[in-house]
Amino acid sequence: MTQHDASLDAVLAHIDSNFNASLDRLDALVRFKSISTDPAYKDECQKAADWLAAELNGIGITTQVHPTPGHPMVVGHDSDTSDKPGPHVLFYGHYDVQPVDPLELWSADPFEPAIVERDGVKMMFGRGTSDDKGQLLTFVEACRAYKEVLGALPVALSLLFEGEEESGSPSLLPFLNANKKELSKDLALVCDTTMFNADTPAITTMLRGLVGEEITITAANRDLHSGMYGGPAANPIRILAKILASLHDDEGRVLIPDFYDGVSELTPEVKAQWDALPFDDKAFLADVDLSVPAGESGYSVYEQINARPTCEFNGITGGYTGDGFKTVIASKASVKISCRLVGQQDPDKIRENLRAFVKALVPADCSVEFSEHGASPAHSLSPDFPPLKQGAKALKDEWGKEAIQMGMGGSIPIVGEFKSILDMDSMLIGFALDDDNIHSPNEKYNLTSYHKGIRSWARVLAALAE
Amino acid sequence: MTQHDASLDAVLAHIDSNFNASLDRLDALVRFKSISTDPAYKDECQKAADWLAAELNGIGITTQVHPTPGHPMVVGHDSDTSDKPGPHVLFYGHYDVQPVDPLELWSADPFEPAIVERDGVKMMFGRGTSDDKGQLLTFVEACRAYKEVLGALPVALSLLFEGEEESGSPSLLPFLNANKKELSKDLALVCDTTMFNADTPAITTMLRGLVGEEITITAANRDLHSGMYGGPAANPIRILAKILASLHDDEGRVLIPDFYDGVSELTPEVKAQWDALPFDDKAFLADVDLSVPAGESGYSVYEQINARPTCEFNGITGGYTGDGFKTVIASKASVKISCRLVGQQDPDKIRENLRAFVKALVPADCSVEFSEHGASPAHSLSPDFPPLKQGAKALKDEWGKEAIQMGMGGSIPIVGEFKSILDMDSMLIGFALDDDNIHSPNEKYNLTSYHKGIRSWARVLAALAE
Repeated sequence: MTQHDASLDAVLAHIDSNFNASLDRLDALVRFKSISTDPAYKDECQKAADWLAAELNGIGITTQVHPTPGHPMVVGHDSDTSDKPGPHVLFYGHYDVQPVDPLELWSADPFEPAIVERDGVKMMFGRGTSDDKGQLLTFVEACRAYKEVLGALPVALSLLFEGEEESGSPSLLPFLNANKKELSKDLALVCDTTMFNADTPAITTMLRGLVGEEITITAANRDLHSGMYGGPAANPIRILAKILASLHDDEGRVLIPDFYDGVSELTPEVKAQWDALPFDDKAFLADVDLSVPAGESGYSVYEQINARPTCEFNGITGGYTGDGFKTVIASKASVKISCRLVGQQDPDKIRENLRAFVKALVPADCSVEFSEHGASPAHSLSPDFPPLKQGAKALKDEWGKEAIQMGMGGSIPIVGEFKSILDMDSMLIGFALDDDNIHSPNEKYNLTSYHKGIRSWARVLAALAE
Repeated sequence: MTQHDASLDAVLAHIDSNFNASLDRLDALVRFKSISTDPAYKDECQKAADWLAAELNGIGITTQVHPTPGHPMVVGHDSDTSDKPGPHVLFYGHYDVQPVDPLELWSADPFEPAIVERDGVKMMFGRGTSDDKGQLLTFVEACRAYKEVLGALPVALSLLFEGEEESGSPSLLPFLNANKKELSKDLALVCDTTMFNADTPAITTMLRGLVGEEITITAANRDLHSGMYGGPAANPIRILAKILASLHDDEGRVLIPDFYDGVSELTPEVKAQWDALPFDDKAFLADVDLSVPAGESGYSVYEQINARPTCEFNGITGGYTGDGFKTVIASKASVKISCRLVGQQDPDKIRENLRAFVKALVPADCSVEFSEHGASPAHSLSPDFPPLKQGAKALKDEWGKEAIQMGMGGSIPIVGEFKSILDMDSMLIGFALDDDNIHSPNEKYNLTSYHKGIRSWARVLAALAE
């Protein structure tokens, strides 16, 4: 047993023997009604931020609460500035929560956390138990254990907690830009993701990026009567339908030129891992009453969601859409399109190619307008990224199972912002489960997620120092 | 000069010498604010109906005002029941008018008719001067001239005036059904259409029919997040776009199976007449900022509107259509489609074939719902229909120019109802002009339209008796 192993064992033992105190702290944090989107709870957000700062200061992490035009940012730096091995880590989480309505669907008060045992599994119910109060405390409690047992953390550490994640993070970008130097570290750790399932740890290594675009076709200069003009007058809905129908082939591939530039196939290792996953394509689709995978043929449903790009139509409107009928030929029709991106796909290039593709299909006497709705590249960690290997090993040590390198179909904006503003890669490790009911009534966090989550972070911090 | 000709000449001379009195009667009728859609004007509708009945009774046409749940019907029958040659005619018009807002765009009170001369053309301004009070009085005044000069009409005559044409005619169908026997005559004359232009008379011999259909595609059982489901989940907007894009070929032809069954080409006579029309395709489209005819290639714009069927998309909606962006995959998307029909196209058959066409393109795990929004066959008079030949000759005699056999892209519901309920063909002759501003501020009727309109009907009635 090395020195390192012995220290880690002592930390893990301390986590186990002090778990009830950890639970009490989660209970305390959940009681703050820090609903960021509702101004009525502004004070509660402030109190949650103050509580976190006090906890961190209490364990020797110098922490300040920074006011913003919205809810405060909590920023801490380990007061121990001795030289440490491994990367300087910035841990990110958020202390705000989603609203609780419809309240009548909760079996108990969302802000009176209660521990309940169901089918032999203990879980704490309450808004934010999982997203993200429980998750962020897994990390804080691991740090506490290090401080209390060894008096020091294995790596240099800073922390950033925001209070607006559930309401669009309006203060985040200005704050990151204003505090680049203070916040830009070697590696971000983000704890806002799930395990693959209750037994299987995961590191989310792929997040799809996004290009959002709105396209409006204008034909005649006003709405026309389809009796008087039907036939010779260009119909913008028909033009738009032709364009949209041209964007995919029959195999589900996207036909925007050069769309697949920068899309890589999975590595054989990840492919093997995914093929072995107990992910049931049929059950996944059946849950929403579907059965025929609509993505690119040749890829599993899990791959279609996590590793393949898409071009989706999120909204369409044109002409008369009320009750009954109106024989109108609309002047305009529009569609909102979003492309989910993977690998090295270039959002700007894709937007440009999409626009050119559309323009070429618009008749000479009609016009098209485009408006941009966001662009973010995909996030993907190289399998050779050292922290990824270290994190994966730590998780395997804790859970006894290989950590899955997961994809996530959606995006986590903070990951893109850490990259673009702070030039910092993010490693996403979380212990939430798909059945945690985040954003829904009866949100919960399994005590195993919390307990083994704390232990996992203790191991990850040790591994990063190796 | 035959006896007939001499009688007609006397009637025409009487019309000319009494034209000022005819104008006074139009003035009187326009002053009733018979806006049928606004309950505030219920009394004014009643008064207009009563006035018409009194006028008709005054010239020996026994007329009654029939109450309905809405505004009254005016029904008259010539009290002279001696045997007459030619068809028993039912003349149809409406005494109600459109609302007048925006009032500030009128140069004078819409219900204080004023005669104004512009560029040497005299016209009467006022709501209803053209649509349909001026038009219906052209016929009534022709009858008056016959009665005053000859004491008798050339043909057996009944009249029907309704007061709800501008508000959807809710009482008309029940009234026609309840009075089939009284109203079913040999031929309906309808005076709610235009001339080709100010010099050129016209008989509208083709009205397009309509099939209205709403199609809703359902994919997943709820709206989905495009991050979590984008790729494998069927997108109903994409499915709908594929369907709509499949409904026309690149030549603008409709691809619903058997769609063109019952569509005839124009007769050489009508084709020659239309080819010679001073109808400017470019100007017609330029008026609405278009320039490329979007209908079936191989047909002029005038033919595309009047003699060719269409399949138009009148409204489409699905997913998020508000401001900004939402990365949603909708559960449902829907479209309102209307087909304009010509010739002998069968509305029911077309609906059936459209539905089958759509169903075949819906993926196995998605569903489609259809809802019906009306069906009416096209109206077309055979070139050999005797009253058409007689009417055309009468109009030529009056205007010195061949009457154009016009098409009209829209439908006039009464024509379909006369056919389906009363088994009666309609001949549509009117003296309105495209610049009459019907339904708009500053509606007007040229005094030439009114004067020569009265003379035209005198000639048509004589011709029908031949």
